[in-house]
Amino acid sequence: MNAPTAHNHLAPQIQQRTVPAEFLAELQVRFGAQCSTALVVREQHGRDESVYEVPPPVAVVFAESTQDVADAVALAARHRVPVIPFGVGSSLEGHLLAVQGGISIDVSRMNKVLSINAEDLTVTVQPGVTRKALNEAVKSEGLFFPIDPGADASIGGMSATRASGTNAVRYGTMRENVLALEVVTARGEVIRTGTRAKKSSAGYDLTRLMVGSEGTLGVMTEITLKLYPLPEAISAATCSFPTIEAAVRTVIQVIQLGVPIARCELIDHNTVRMVNAHSKLGLREENMLLMEFHGSPASVKEQAETVQEIAREFGGNAFEWAVTPEERTRLWTARHNAYFAAIQSKPGCRAISTDTCVPISRLADCLLDSVSEADAAGLPYFLVGHVGDGNFHFGYLIDPNKPEEHTLAEELNHKLVARALSLEGTCTGEHGVGLHKMDFLVTEAGAGAVDMMRTIKRALDPDNIMNPGKIFSL
Amino acid sequence: MNAPTAHNHLAPQIQQRTVPAEFLAELQVRFGAQCSTALVVREQHGRDESVYEVPPPVAVVFAESTQDVADAVALAARHRVPVIPFGVGSSLEGHLLAVQGGISIDVSRMNKVLSINAEDLTVTVQPGVTRKALNEAVKSEGLFFPIDPGADASIGGMSATRASGTNAVRYGTMRENVLALEVVTARGEVIRTGTRAKKSSAGYDLTRLMVGSEGTLGVMTEITLKLYPLPEAISAATCSFPTIEAAVRTVIQVIQLGVPIARCELIDHNTVRMVNAHSKLGLREENMLLMEFHGSPASVKEQAETVQEIAREFGGNAFEWAVTPEERTRLWTARHNAYFAAIQSKPGCRAISTDTCVPISRLADCLLDSVSEADAAGLPYFLVGHVGDGNFHFGYLIDPNKPEEHTLAEELNHKLVARALSLEGTCTGEHGVGLHKMDFLVTEAGAGAVDMMRTIKRALDPDNIMNPGKIFSL
Repeated sequence: MNAPTAHNHLAPQIQQRTVPAEFLAELQVRFGAQCSTALVVREQHGRDESVYEVPPPVAVVFAESTQDVADAVALAARHRVPVIPFGVGSSLEGHLLAVQGGISIDVSRMNKVLSINAEDLTVTVQPGVTRKALNEAVKSEGLFFPIDPGADASIGGMSATRASGTNAVRYGTMRENVLALEVVTARGEVIRTGTRAKKSSAGYDLTRLMVGSEGTLGVMTEITLKLYPLPEAISAATCSFPTIEAAVRTVIQVIQLGVPIARCELIDHNTVRMVNAHSKLGLREENMLLMEFHGSPASVKEQAETVQEIAREFGGNAFEWAVTPEERTRLWTARHNAYFAAIQSKPGCRAISTDTCVPISRLADCLLDSVSEADAAGLPYFLVGHVGDGNFHFGYLIDPNKPEEHTLAEELNHKLVARALSLEGTCTGEHGVGLHKMDFLVTEAGAGAVDMMRTIKRALDPDNIMNPGKIFSL
Repeated sequence: MNAPTAHNHLAPQIQQRTVPAEFLAELQVRFGAQCSTALVVREQHGRDESVYEVPPPVAVVFAESTQDVADAVALAARHRVPVIPFGVGSSLEGHLLAVQGGISIDVSRMNKVLSINAEDLTVTVQPGVTRKALNEAVKSEGLFFPIDPGADASIGGMSATRASGTNAVRYGTMRENVLALEVVTARGEVIRTGTRAKKSSAGYDLTRLMVGSEGTLGVMTEITLKLYPLPEAISAATCSFPTIEAAVRTVIQVIQLGVPIARCELIDHNTVRMVNAHSKLGLREENMLLMEFHGSPASVKEQAETVQEIAREFGGNAFEWAVTPEERTRLWTARHNAYFAAIQSKPGCRAISTDTCVPISRLADCLLDSVSEADAAGLPYFLVGHVGDGNFHFGYLIDPNKPEEHTLAEELNHKLVARALSLEGTCTGEHGVGLHKMDFLVTEAGAGAVDMMRTIKRALDPDNIMNPGKIFSL
């Protein structure tokens, strides 16, 4: 095993491999107009929402079928050329960047919902289907797919990063909601990792190994997901709190009491202000919990009453209800736009996003000290959180032309991660490791566990062509 | 890759490796009285609930700590001696049998509940803690651990086989309920596979890779689990049905309506008769659903009413309630004793257990044809099922001295598995592959996926010492 090499958070290690001319020629022959080497196309596929600047891939293949993906990977394998799967480009951690060169395989044209099995609450989709398109497709069956990372991400990307979002507190993450996969391996072979059975003890859990592997072990070409019946009743509410601590203490008690709350989001007063400005909402500019309850009418009422009572104990006030679908959509759209609202509050800025997640009993310890640190540093930030899961995000807003701001943001992130790890938490609840958290992963998991990951990677991808340079150094 | 070799379901392939005398000597020096080579001890560790006859391991180490396990494995690794972890011996599929010789590492003395984090609904235990002991330990905190495979299995064994049982319909399986592990690798190193955070995207999901790996990738030495608040209200009920089909149709509709039923078990009329005889119960000797509802009093009432209405539609009658804890315990104990009740109904017999699991919409198709087949074959059997999950077990009762009965039982099992796979199901919902289902796994997962499992196994355990000869041929 190599010792893990130190990784610079400010600039990723770029080691572009040589791509043989024959490879590109063969790619053009096989894919014709489905393959582009135009700079504008390559550049669009060579960046994501991270702050890194990396040269783009040498070509982009627009796959339209599993066979396309298999052929592209087999060709790349023959020439030892890196392959990076691309969904919609909403990664925050540099997952899509061609740090070792190679090609991008864009799966956005693989956007078919292949089969809805309403009776079994399962659906099988191609990886380019986005979460909103999926929900449109299953709505008429009275079903929905709850995982909701904010961006209208592709199901492939969400699976690859083990995404979650606002509904995870009740419905789990992609870990719990991907039932089975079709995957193109590093050799260009097509395998299936499971069946539509709800549970199975049939051998190693290849599905869960692939989910969250960030494209480093294979390209997902079909994904079978769990669906849920649209709740009979839904109600959303906002509640304002005098301090972040009061909001957080409320959440902790709600979760510990086992209230099956569907969504439980924190938005700090500063971010409420940004959201108001961006989405033209008249929310009270105080620290706020944004909650949603799902269930039968009786159960929703029961949950809401319990939560109101707890909130009141901690000084929560101005419980406001959004009962109509339009009102709810407006609120959640505003929540999802918090990132963009924040970016627009400081023209030309980029956001460095944190993603720690801690056990719920440690949430106040982790969050409050980090708020003090961020306030003291003087860097503007937004703060939103899937606090019901112990997961929250600071977005430090930096001027990309001021390296000192980037450095300061990373210092704050480092302190936050160190704090989260000391509280038995993780450096990433839902965004993945990508380029940004490679060192954090070693600190969190330990060299032995990361070596085990490397050993698996080497065994399944001996030429290191599948999204190389991500998760760990190799 | 080697082609998978054909596996004989009636007799496992035995290839005992030579164990060097120095190894045994070193083991005795390191472990003293914690190491036994007495035949009676070895024999007790060389069998489980499967029907196979295999020579016992050469020695048994009674591990009392992670260090004990690490030292035993490191010693075994140095001499390339197989290592088989042992919990309580309740496996049904031959997991514990020393088909390639080697030693058994008994973890039953590692039976400490290390830390209960009631506020976070997590607990960390040693692998030898049994599910009943765990529930005793957390009861006073108002918490419980729902996974319940019937036998009072060890948490280590349950994790290693990805077990589930009667509560999985609501609470999931070990896949969903193991948060993190400490594992001794094939080199005798100790790693941790996760934190206590509720969710994480930090690299490959080693926890889920280990859960269900049947001891072939490492020995679990600590297990962090999710806990649940004891429900405010619980009620159990039995309901009789004129036909198995009527019972199954009821279940399908209950699940499809999204009723959050906690337990939903089928017991066929024949098995009810065996259970009555064994447990001195006066249950109506008809096909029966045994159900349990968890929640607030209002929610339990609502669930029960919905289910009663559906059952009535399908001709269900004699809804009988068990409200007191004593009544409920009596019913569930009877359910868990179905296996032993059946064994006692035919003195001297052994049971060949099936374990298929199919999507709920296919349950009737899978189950009813298999009942007809079993009836036509004339072999006595019991039939119980976690039907809310689409999982059920036939137990064909064979005379071990009549090979023709064993052959007939395996033929029935083959037909059932083929049917389940054609209905998008799995050959094993919860028992694991072990020795018994190695061919089924290849049929179900495909040679490519099994090759991927083998590749992982070879990479993590190059000398093939961790429970060799299980899951797949190597």
